[in-house]
Amino acid sequence: MNRHEIQLYIIILLCLYSFQLKAQEQEKHDNLFTAGHASAFIGGLYDGYLPYSDLLLHGDFGLGAPDKLDGELLILDGKIYQTQSSGKTSEIQGTGLTPFSVVNFFNTDSTFKVPRQMDKDQLYAYLDSILPNQNGIYAIRIKGAFNKIETRAFPPVSKKPYVPLAEMIPLQQFFAFTEVKGDLVGYRIPNYMEGPNIVGYHFHFLSEDKTGGGHIINLLTDDITIEVDYLNSFTVNLPQTKDFENFDLNKDRSEELKQVENGM
Amino acid sequence: MNRHEIQLYIIILLCLYSFQLKAQEQEKHDNLFTAGHASAFIGGLYDGYLPYSDLLLHGDFGLGAPDKLDGELLILDGKIYQTQSSGKTSEIQGTGLTPFSVVNFFNTDSTFKVPRQMDKDQLYAYLDSILPNQNGIYAIRIKGAFNKIETRAFPPVSKKPYVPLAEMIPLQQFFAFTEVKGDLVGYRIPNYMEGPNIVGYHFHFLSEDKTGGGHIINLLTDDITIEVDYLNSFTVNLPQTKDFENFDLNKDRSEELKQVENGM
Repeated sequence: MNRHEIQLYIIILLCLYSFQLKAQEQEKHDNLFTAGHASAFIGGLYDGYLPYSDLLLHGDFGLGAPDKLDGELLILDGKIYQTQSSGKTSEIQGTGLTPFSVVNFFNTDSTFKVPRQMDKDQLYAYLDSILPNQNGIYAIRIKGAFNKIETRAFPPVSKKPYVPLAEMIPLQQFFAFTEVKGDLVGYRIPNYMEGPNIVGYHFHFLSEDKTGGGHIINLLTDDITIEVDYLNSFTVNLPQTKDFENFDLNKDRSEELKQVENGM
Repeated sequence: MNRHEIQLYIIILLCLYSFQLKAQEQEKHDNLFTAGHASAFIGGLYDGYLPYSDLLLHGDFGLGAPDKLDGELLILDGKIYQTQSSGKTSEIQGTGLTPFSVVNFFNTDSTFKVPRQMDKDQLYAYLDSILPNQNGIYAIRIKGAFNKIETRAFPPVSKKPYVPLAEMIPLQQFFAFTEVKGDLVGYRIPNYMEGPNIVGYHFHFLSEDKTGGGHIINLLTDDITIEVDYLNSFTVNLPQTKDFENFDLNKDRSEELKQVENGM
């Protein structure tokens, strides 16, 4: 191979590589990726199936559940944090599987600064006012100071068959934070995605010092910055398991889901 | 740059390129891609928004509708065919937009030869018997000889606001083929995908000589080969249009959809 041939090969490879990168960027951009099926998950399919390393191929931001429902997951800046029912919150360093998670690559489209107190209902009403597309999918990062944050985390399950998540509600553990800084990580998902996804607002919390977190039950903002990423497609990755194949998805679990999301 | 440096660069580029290819293959593999939202489409959103060239990035097999509902689309071996309400069937050569299409990259997982007569109900019952995962997504190509094929195609709409598809039913044009060879291209989509997708069985037809086609209304098989591709994820690409943003998706259109699918 002479020098000119080598240079030609390098140019061809660079072209191919940039073409591939472009194709992959298109896929990454503005897509919500769901691992698992929400209705099946809240129906009791808590066994993890998708490796965390695979999940991170589809997003650097999001929330979910660990294998066997051992607490709550939050994904921020490409790192995965687990809050267990003991309250212990730690970055996941090793391998692991998730039964259900929702992620995207977060790119801020709009930023809103809100330096005032809002409770959860007021925050959601404010978000409704700034997110006018009723059929849109929104990823939302809320960073700042909070007067109050209340979260919960589920304890792990051990023996199959697992009971539905609504029956696990009495086993939840609650955590209260006052005058705390941190991030809310979550989504507003439109009603037509019900079934495979959890619709409406859904947030998990991570304190700034990364020592506390969980699924949001209640809150009072103090001085926050809201970053929004407008998404325009969604992917649902189905568990390739016998449990999922055999699961009866015809049952309407929307009421159960509301109970689980509200923690009561 | 000396010879050794050049060789090193080539090796690095080859590694990067193969890594990208692998990531892209994973995305391509076993994913159902929907352009548009089925409920919005049958509700009257017939204006195309996704270029055919973009659609083909997500699949080489599938079915859909042309811009302004000008007939029916079928995608086979990476080519797009349009059957208009005149019956004229032709390969789309130029540019164009689709308001709703469903595609995947077809890779045969299983093949079944059925050298006997089955009507549509018998065919669907047979497919149910060989596709046991009630929660699975199946792409299905049925190639061979048919005693009878009955199809339909919608005429194009012209003036906005467009009426819902169920109100267009009287305007359908029907086509009958006897002793014809060709392909059925379609899917079985599970119930939990209702709303964004058309659930159940759904096939379009293309004759072997590529001169006839349309949405399947009825059929009688003679000697067919069924190829099945088991899919394990689905992506829905939402129209980024004001029409979609403003569309009321809360109306249940499942009954309308059944009428439209059955052509009556």
